[in-house]
Amino acid sequence: LLLIGDVCCTLAGVIDLAVDWMTDLKEGVCLSAFWYSHEQCCWTSNETTFEDRDKCPLWQKWSELLVNQSEGASAYILNYLMYILWALLFAFLAVSLVRVFAPYACGSGIPEIKTILSGFIIRGYLGKWTLLIKTVTLVLVVSSGLSLGKEGPLVHVACCCGNFFSSLFSKYSKNEGKRREVLSAAAAAGVSVAFGAPIGGVLFSLEEVSYYFPLKTLWRSFFAALVAAFTLRSINPFGNSRLVLFYVEYHTPWYMAELFPFILLGVFGGLWGTLFIRCNIAWCRRRKTTRLGKYPVLEVIVVTAITAIIAYPNPYTRQSTSELISELFNDCGALESSQLCDYINDPNMTRPVDDIPDRPAGVGVYTAMWQLALALIFKIVVTIFTFGMKIPSGLFIPSMAVGAIAGRMVGIGVEQLAYHHHDWIIFRNWCRPGADCVTPGLYAMVGAAACLGGVTRMTVSLVVIMFELTGGLEYIVPLMAAAVTSKWVADAFGKEGIYEAHIHLNGYPFLDVKDEFTHRTLATDVMRPRRGEPPLSVLTQDSMTVEDVETLIKETDYNGFPVVVSRDSERLIGFAQRRELILAIKNARQRQEGIVSNSIMYFTEEPPELPANSPHPLKLRRILNLSPFTVTDHTPMETVVDIFRKLGLRQCLVTRSGLLGIITKKDVLRHMAQMANQDPESIMFN
Amino acid sequence: LLLIGDVCCTLAGVIDLAVDWMTDLKEGVCLSAFWYSHEQCCWTSNETTFEDRDKCPLWQKWSELLVNQSEGASAYILNYLMYILWALLFAFLAVSLVRVFAPYACGSGIPEIKTILSGFIIRGYLGKWTLLIKTVTLVLVVSSGLSLGKEGPLVHVACCCGNFFSSLFSKYSKNEGKRREVLSAAAAAGVSVAFGAPIGGVLFSLEEVSYYFPLKTLWRSFFAALVAAFTLRSINPFGNSRLVLFYVEYHTPWYMAELFPFILLGVFGGLWGTLFIRCNIAWCRRRKTTRLGKYPVLEVIVVTAITAIIAYPNPYTRQSTSELISELFNDCGALESSQLCDYINDPNMTRPVDDIPDRPAGVGVYTAMWQLALALIFKIVVTIFTFGMKIPSGLFIPSMAVGAIAGRMVGIGVEQLAYHHHDWIIFRNWCRPGADCVTPGLYAMVGAAACLGGVTRMTVSLVVIMFELTGGLEYIVPLMAAAVTSKWVADAFGKEGIYEAHIHLNGYPFLDVKDEFTHRTLATDVMRPRRGEPPLSVLTQDSMTVEDVETLIKETDYNGFPVVVSRDSERLIGFAQRRELILAIKNARQRQEGIVSNSIMYFTEEPPELPANSPHPLKLRRILNLSPFTVTDHTPMETVVDIFRKLGLRQCLVTRSGLLGIITKKDVLRHMAQMANQDPESIMFN
Repeated sequence: LLLIGDVCCTLAGVIDLAVDWMTDLKEGVCLSAFWYSHEQCCWTSNETTFEDRDKCPLWQKWSELLVNQSEGASAYILNYLMYILWALLFAFLAVSLVRVFAPYACGSGIPEIKTILSGFIIRGYLGKWTLLIKTVTLVLVVSSGLSLGKEGPLVHVACCCGNFFSSLFSKYSKNEGKRREVLSAAAAAGVSVAFGAPIGGVLFSLEEVSYYFPLKTLWRSFFAALVAAFTLRSINPFGNSRLVLFYVEYHTPWYMAELFPFILLGVFGGLWGTLFIRCNIAWCRRRKTTRLGKYPVLEVIVVTAITAIIAYPNPYTRQSTSELISELFNDCGALESSQLCDYINDPNMTRPVDDIPDRPAGVGVYTAMWQLALALIFKIVVTIFTFGMKIPSGLFIPSMAVGAIAGRMVGIGVEQLAYHHHDWIIFRNWCRPGADCVTPGLYAMVGAAACLGGVTRMTVSLVVIMFELTGGLEYIVPLMAAAVTSKWVADAFGKEGIYEAHIHLNGYPFLDVKDEFTHRTLATDVMRPRRGEPPLSVLTQDSMTVEDVETLIKETDYNGFPVVVSRDSERLIGFAQRRELILAIKNARQRQEGIVSNSIMYFTEEPPELPANSPHPLKLRRILNLSPFTVTDHTPMETVVDIFRKLGLRQCLVTRSGLLGIITKKDVLRHMAQMANQDPESIMFN
Repeated sequence: LLLIGDVCCTLAGVIDLAVDWMTDLKEGVCLSAFWYSHEQCCWTSNETTFEDRDKCPLWQKWSELLVNQSEGASAYILNYLMYILWALLFAFLAVSLVRVFAPYACGSGIPEIKTILSGFIIRGYLGKWTLLIKTVTLVLVVSSGLSLGKEGPLVHVACCCGNFFSSLFSKYSKNEGKRREVLSAAAAAGVSVAFGAPIGGVLFSLEEVSYYFPLKTLWRSFFAALVAAFTLRSINPFGNSRLVLFYVEYHTPWYMAELFPFILLGVFGGLWGTLFIRCNIAWCRRRKTTRLGKYPVLEVIVVTAITAIIAYPNPYTRQSTSELISELFNDCGALESSQLCDYINDPNMTRPVDDIPDRPAGVGVYTAMWQLALALIFKIVVTIFTFGMKIPSGLFIPSMAVGAIAGRMVGIGVEQLAYHHHDWIIFRNWCRPGADCVTPGLYAMVGAAACLGGVTRMTVSLVVIMFELTGGLEYIVPLMAAAVTSKWVADAFGKEGIYEAHIHLNGYPFLDVKDEFTHRTLATDVMRPRRGEPPLSVLTQDSMTVEDVETLIKETDYNGFPVVVSRDSERLIGFAQRRELILAIKNARQRQEGIVSNSIMYFTEEPPELPANSPHPLKLRRILNLSPFTVTDHTPMETVVDIFRKLGLRQCLVTRSGLLGIITKKDVLRHMAQMANQDPESIMFN
């Protein structure tokens, strides 16, 4: 776990630095050393005053470098073109790498990791190649300016690390359950480093990713997150001695009356979540089922081109999404030069710099409002088409951006309303003229939480991540209120979060712990064989020959076979796994003398009494599971579903005195879909 | 849940106010209105300057009131006596109330709530009387100055509220499982209001209290905690618009080198936890088994007297424990008048008030160190004897106090070391002369976390509670490091936290989710009947008469009986609960005609074929559980324990083709004790 935490963190640091550099590469290059990002380039230059930092001579835009022009229409167009070109190059590289080397590296990976943690095995999903390619392509796609985040994929990267390290220790590589615990912890470490939110990471792993989360895992995740946080502190990627990504410091508390806009933002978040999930799933389904899915590279190129073309003219979409969020969260201090802080100052006022009263908005703010509104629409539309393409893509940052834009706009609205109408009843109690009562940055934060909540349906982990991200511990009630509202609104339109929706879309055999099964069906309604079907394929304990068994294995594709006393009595004695049967027979045929096709196979302690000249029998008790899981045929399916979930079973035998049938996880899933009036065949198990 | 959150919060507010008043009553009385506490009394007086607030004329110490003296030895002695007298009065009232009205109101209640949530029923434990008496006595004991906190009991109070409200709605009162979910949520609300830490409350409920915590409960707890936090915000008990109890604001980050003392504090916390648990359990066992337990009132009186006598002369033990913690957590600002902040100021230095460099300690600090050392020893000893007496008593605050004292002392030590030896290699990099590098308050915070962690073995919830309590989000790595170390050290000496230790001591049938069962025994080794014992008491499906069954019920005290086809075949068809059998027979005898003692009872669909003149048979299929839980006799006990835990079973039948035996929860617990080399009879199940 120490290793996982360390490596995750180092990877995250490298990704951060690379993304910084490549994002800036789209705009210009550093003359002193081309591998410096804009900020590093100007740090090393001698211009140390605050104002000059942005226009240090060593950093040259492409237009300056190529045609020696920094202003004017032609320079603008040249920069524009270079921006689009770089974006297309990055995106093309990314999608090609994914297609050629590691098809599993696409998407956010969280739906698949949820499925893996619930007990399903997707071979190669957590392999070394996936790790490598996902890391590289993640840098490329984030730099290309597409509307996606690096947080979700980092969880996948962390799980790949976890899988790699757990394969080094036989204690974990042998035991599937223990490996899953390590993966849960790795997921926690992934979120921890993605956001610099150790506690939030643990809770995210608990609430969203992990299937079954014993307390021991909690403790392990906590440790992994601690190591990750500690390493992060040593690396210090955000350049200040804080762990948090978007540190904010507001100077005013919030007021009860503000809860109303906060709850409105929650409603917006819920609606956005619903809209996003519906549209995104509809689009992904179309991609899956029509010819569209055959041209993934073209799709990525087209989306990147459109994104770049529309994004460049608007300053709020041109900058990287995390910078945008950071700017939206910020309170307008006295030194703030951003357009969002272009308020009309009262020249007679002298006040300490960090306690500025509400002021009327200036021209810059109104311009910013328009640009933000356009950015909002653009982000909403483009994110729907981006998430699910064949590149690594996270959803946290775009969702937060949508919420932050909406929140900031609401915040500025409320602020101006309060300034111009401070005699209204709702403002009179807390917002006298000259007071600093409304903080638009706080609204952005609440909006971001609401939108993230609407999409993922997180609650506790969401709030913890938000206040770890921002350090805004005092604003826990607004954040909670928005998160709760957003979840309510979104749940009213559909219970599934985006990850569950994608699991469903891809037909992974995932038994959601959150779904409640309330129908009154019985085990006998679900088990196979059904009425009229041929009887269950079983082994008998001491009367089948090796050849019989080999034929049975060849003719069926079941994962295992129940073992009964005899065909007549059907009294169950155990369960034999297909894989182990094949292995045992192969070994016996090679190494044991006298084992031929008509040797009798027996699962009892003592060999059966055989005629004198029959061949040497084969004892297979070793591979027999003597305690297969059984339920009676009258057990309500509610209980069966509960058992499958809590014990993580793959199959369960149905008995009444003797063996009656078998229920597998897929049977359970099919039955649940049927009961929910869905077409059971829509669950594809591919 | 809305109601629960609201009522909990109101109760907590009332308790806070009453405790404030009664604690101050021990020292003096307000002349304007005797129901004002010291602070309220002086607020209402006209002396509004900061310095005069402590000696406002309306507030009179007892010596001033009774003999009109405020200084001198006799006044001191009179105040001392009054202090002891009030303390004794409060304690006597409390213990008498508990003894007479609600014996369940004693202790912290958390071990019992854990047991209840694991499926065991303690009648009356969550009743209305317990709620009322616990609230009243909690105020009394906290005011009496005993070394205990109100946080643990508040969880019990919240659960009583939860139980009360859930009994009003039939949806919850009928379904045991749903009620437990409400109780989990109530526990979260309890911690939320106790500390003003909503997220910490949810996690505490998850990590420490709840047995099985489905995600739906997480969401409910979150809602309850939100409501509680919101109500708390409206009531505003801490007089500032912050939610947090001990708000601190430090001006310096922490440095890597400081991790060493933080880890040392973690070790101290772990050792304290071990020491406390061992001594406290030894003392409680002695109380249980010797004559000491017969005089609970006397015990409380003696402990209160000793506490009051020793506590009064030392200012750090005289003040209430939460004030003490608050003072220890505080950073020394320029305006701080506390003895702990009596540093020697450099007269040449002019600096902003909130960024004071490290200074040499003055006389006051050295005095304070001695007093703190004495207070530490006193708290350690007296808490061991206090926790477990027949009064409501929580452990959070005393543990935190012990840790905060130790931490502050270490912090001052490191600070002085760094000041006087800033040329040492370990200090040279980060602590130049004139810099503010060490914050002793932070050490107090870390120490408090470590000690609380050592006693309760919480990890994630501990860290979240600590930073919600203090608002110190930046100090998450030190807190995590201390919590992890403390848990490691304490776990090395014994796996049980204080609550599990008390559960064990009291012999509650609690199957700990955290214990791992790794022995290789099988179900057949644990099931009853054992070899040589008489066969299992079973019912047959259609051959026993009403009288036979009544005799069986009378002769045994089992909770239920397996139903088999016949004595010879022992093929299991279901399980009938004792309670329902008794009820069904009683009803049938009263209402059904023709049911006499030798009527045949049958559990099949169709009545058995009977001789012509036999009495009318009694059909009991309705009460037959057709899907009893079964395992085969070869199932490893590891699996059985897992099933019992995850499914919350009370019994499980053992079969191999036919019925072989039964395993109950108590059998499992006894077997686990035996395997851990404990005397199985020490588990008393009382």
